[in-house]
This record gives sequence, structure tokens and C-alpha cells, in this order.
Amino acid sequence: MMTASDKQLATNVAQALRQRRVDSGLTLEGLASRAGLHRTSLGLIERGERHLTLASAKRLADALGCSLWELVKDAEDAAG
Amino acid sequence: MMTASDKQLATNVAQALRQRRVDSGLTLEGLASRAGLHRTSLGLIERGERHLTLASAKRLADALGCSLWELVKDAEDAAG
Repeated sequence: MMTASDKQLATNVAQALRQRRVDSGLTLEGLASRAGLHRTSLGLIERGERHLTLASAKRLADALGCSLWELVKDAEDAAG
Repeated sequence: MMTASDKQLATNVAQALRQRRVDSGLTLEGLASRAGLHRTSLGLIERGERHLTLASAKRLADALGCSLWELVKDAEDAAG
């Protein structure tokens, strides 16, 4: 189960992901394919409705050409 | 299933976690308790044998008094 703070983190990571995806000119399908994830999974992730493992988050960061820590920092900075 | 690169990430995160835990003077039990995780789970995590969700990693970072991105950066820097 997600606690409120887990949900907040998921929302912030989702926003950071979507922002970097859009900035990279990638569609949801394009990023999912590059990262080896299902389009449906990535959709849930981008809506903050799915727990991400560090391993999946790393795959997404790789596919976006950034470090995982940069993606996480975006998310934590957004949290203020 | 963990791929080789997932396993490498888990190993690097495990090392970064253990280093910060030891630097904080916390035992495995102490950190597990602070982070609201089972001692056994944390033991598996510190051996790189368990997938960490971002949410659990965040709880551990909070318990260690650092940002999640700092913990992830430690792990990625260790990966070289």
C-alpha cells in the first residue's frame, strides 16, 4: 500500500519523468520501448499510480540519457 | 528477475546504504526500525539481494538524514 508520502514521491518522480520525456521529444511509447517497459506500465508510472523500483527508474533514466540521481533530484527539488 | 545491470545497481546502492549507516553509527536493527522496515528486509537490501522501490529507498534516506538523490549519487559514483 502507498502511504501519503510514498504517493507524493511517486507523483514527483512522475512529473520529473514526464518533463524529461517531453523535453527529449519522446512519446510514451517511444520511451517505454527504449526502457524495455510496457507502455501501460509507463502510463501508470507517469500518473504516479505505480511503485517504481530503483532498477526500473534506472532503466528510464538511461533511456532519457540522464543519471538516476538527476531524475531523483528533479523529483525531490519539485517536492520543495 | 534481476538482470546483471539491475544486480549491479542493487550492489552499488547496498554499498552506499551500508556506508552511510555505518558513518551514522546505526546498527542494521537501528536503521530498520527508524525506516519502518523489517530487519530481515534491510539485511537482504544491504546484500544487494532485494529490489528496492523508490519509496523504500526514500524511507531509508530519510532515516539516514540525507536526500534520496544523494544516496543514489553515491551508488552511481561507485559504479564509475
